[in-house]
Amino acid sequence: MKKESALKQQLQHTIDNKTKPLGALGRLEEIALQIGLIQQTTKPVIRQPHIVVFAGDHGIAQTGLVNAYPQEVTAQMVLNFAHGGAAINVFCRQNQLTLKVVDAGVNFDFTSHSTEVLNAKIGYGTKNYLNEPAMTIAEAEQAIEKGRSIVRQLTVDGCNCIGFGEMGIGNTSSATLIMSAITGLPVVEFTGRGAGLNDDQLQKKIDTLQEVFKKHTLNELSQQPIDLLSRVGGFEIAMMAGAYLEAVQLQLIVLVDGFIATAAMLIANEIFRATKQPSPVPDWTTLTDHCIFAHTSHEAGHEKLLRHLGVTPLLHLSMRLGEGTGAALAMPMIQAAVNFLNEMASFESAGVSTQNAER
Amino acid sequence: MKKESALKQQLQHTIDNKTKPLGALGRLEEIALQIGLIQQTTKPVIRQPHIVVFAGDHGIAQTGLVNAYPQEVTAQMVLNFAHGGAAINVFCRQNQLTLKVVDAGVNFDFTSHSTEVLNAKIGYGTKNYLNEPAMTIAEAEQAIEKGRSIVRQLTVDGCNCIGFGEMGIGNTSSATLIMSAITGLPVVEFTGRGAGLNDDQLQKKIDTLQEVFKKHTLNELSQQPIDLLSRVGGFEIAMMAGAYLEAVQLQLIVLVDGFIATAAMLIANEIFRATKQPSPVPDWTTLTDHCIFAHTSHEAGHEKLLRHLGVTPLLHLSMRLGEGTGAALAMPMIQAAVNFLNEMASFESAGVSTQNAER
Repeated sequence: MKKESALKQQLQHTIDNKTKPLGALGRLEEIALQIGLIQQTTKPVIRQPHIVVFAGDHGIAQTGLVNAYPQEVTAQMVLNFAHGGAAINVFCRQNQLTLKVVDAGVNFDFTSHSTEVLNAKIGYGTKNYLNEPAMTIAEAEQAIEKGRSIVRQLTVDGCNCIGFGEMGIGNTSSATLIMSAITGLPVVEFTGRGAGLNDDQLQKKIDTLQEVFKKHTLNELSQQPIDLLSRVGGFEIAMMAGAYLEAVQLQLIVLVDGFIATAAMLIANEIFRATKQPSPVPDWTTLTDHCIFAHTSHEAGHEKLLRHLGVTPLLHLSMRLGEGTGAALAMPMIQAAVNFLNEMASFESAGVSTQNAER
Repeated sequence: MKKESALKQQLQHTIDNKTKPLGALGRLEEIALQIGLIQQTTKPVIRQPHIVVFAGDHGIAQTGLVNAYPQEVTAQMVLNFAHGGAAINVFCRQNQLTLKVVDAGVNFDFTSHSTEVLNAKIGYGTKNYLNEPAMTIAEAEQAIEKGRSIVRQLTVDGCNCIGFGEMGIGNTSSATLIMSAITGLPVVEFTGRGAGLNDDQLQKKIDTLQEVFKKHTLNELSQQPIDLLSRVGGFEIAMMAGAYLEAVQLQLIVLVDGFIATAAMLIANEIFRATKQPSPVPDWTTLTDHCIFAHTSHEAGHEKLLRHLGVTPLLHLSMRLGEGTGAALAMPMIQAAVNFLNEMASFESAGVSTQNAER
């Protein structure tokens, strides 16, 4: 307790004495403080920032009941990532982020692209949760452990900052069901148009997800994240949940992307609480304390969920693409927060007067 | 008319055929379209992006009636810019922007820093508009012309993208009076805490500005921008107004920073309309069509003004620092908009299916 308090005071003092009015860098000051606490230092650094995109397929997508694009688009987009043509490639190149694409469970064999796509396949897509659980408990646990080990390896290699993204046709449906189960808010609150449903398709999606929610009695699983994953999760969501847990434990800077990434964070948070994983930062009890929320997705329900969590994301660009694109675009803001903390002159060092000003 | 329509359609077609759901890149798609129209091309480029910070002093600041910091802080901060220790230096270094600091009229002699501070001095600070006009009409015109010539030179040197910032103790007061005069909304709507006034000081600022508004009959000057500048403007605001006008004429990408930068844009817009300066883009009739609004300042009234103008800025980070810091932080978003347009694969080129999806 004492140590954190002292460090927090030191950080706040450093921030307040930079050559700017008190609080004038707004959200960047909050981020600088948060990162200092995560790294437990007044001189935080960002090393080898990554975007890790987990891809997986969803059995439900083969029904066409919830998705605007056919299931094969997941694999096609993973190949697009591998060839450097997707939005996330463009933004990673621009912001000098290393992109890691992980096959968590796509219905396609990427062995001929093994240098660009990390093979962490749990299966060739989940089962259709309209009929049966999406995956076994063992598969859910295996995915979580795999997510942990991927982050462990990146950390060994020197990375200390990761934004998590995803690709998976049908995964807004999984995310919606998870959000609804964990928050207790109705499914309809979180059901959005995904990649582009029209009004009729949206209604069909809502009806379908309400049916699934009931069938799997998700209302009873709010604190049983592994069960929840097994009933309606996705391999990419489960793996991302594991990745969050490891990243937080290793004191990494963690960026949460959009709608699906936030659902995975909810799962991770429940595991974090259930296992009482000790936080490296005294006083911090939830994953939301550790995470930086990159942006508000335009997908209906994301803003609602973020409000429910009491967090404010950095960017509001009406984006709804996934792939970690919001996290990749927010990365320069994270870097700016760290840079002003380390590089700006203080009032004393720059010889700037503060007379009159309340400080 | 026809040409713009064709280009706009072409741009929209290119944007819509990138490998992403329709509209999924949100604001970045709007920016890409806007920049394509500004440059009249489907392949826009950003060359040598700059932040230009205009600095000037305000006679009113010597009274202490409206400002938290003493007048000498303007010069001290300009020296801080020159030494690389301010927030804007940090953000420009990070985002590889060239910073140009312009002495538009600071009450200090920077001749010993002539390499870091461009001498465009109109005077050693404006006069106190509580007693007399801030500057002469000739000075206002001279400042505008100087702003134009600075941008002209940067363009000759190869730059095609500028964010404008400012430094000037007391300049939120000038900005407030200008906003009120041009929009017709009461002074109190735009009067904020600037660099950090307390409640009593804020009330004193409001009282003072209301008195000034009345004394100079600013309500009669809504369409007389040069007069308005002469009564209550600042040298840095006048020069920035000229810079906007030239930048728009030369088809530059223009980023508007915060509170004061938006007031200068208002002045420029009135001049633009009054002189019927032809827009390089058919159909565009106001400067707001040309400008990219970088961020919403936390200074009370900025959001109100932006709403009044019908524009939505890119960032909402609760910042209120000036110096062009909002523009510098928004620059990677501008670059991202241009990059996705130029670099992302299309559905056709990537072999991604669109079946089911409404496009």
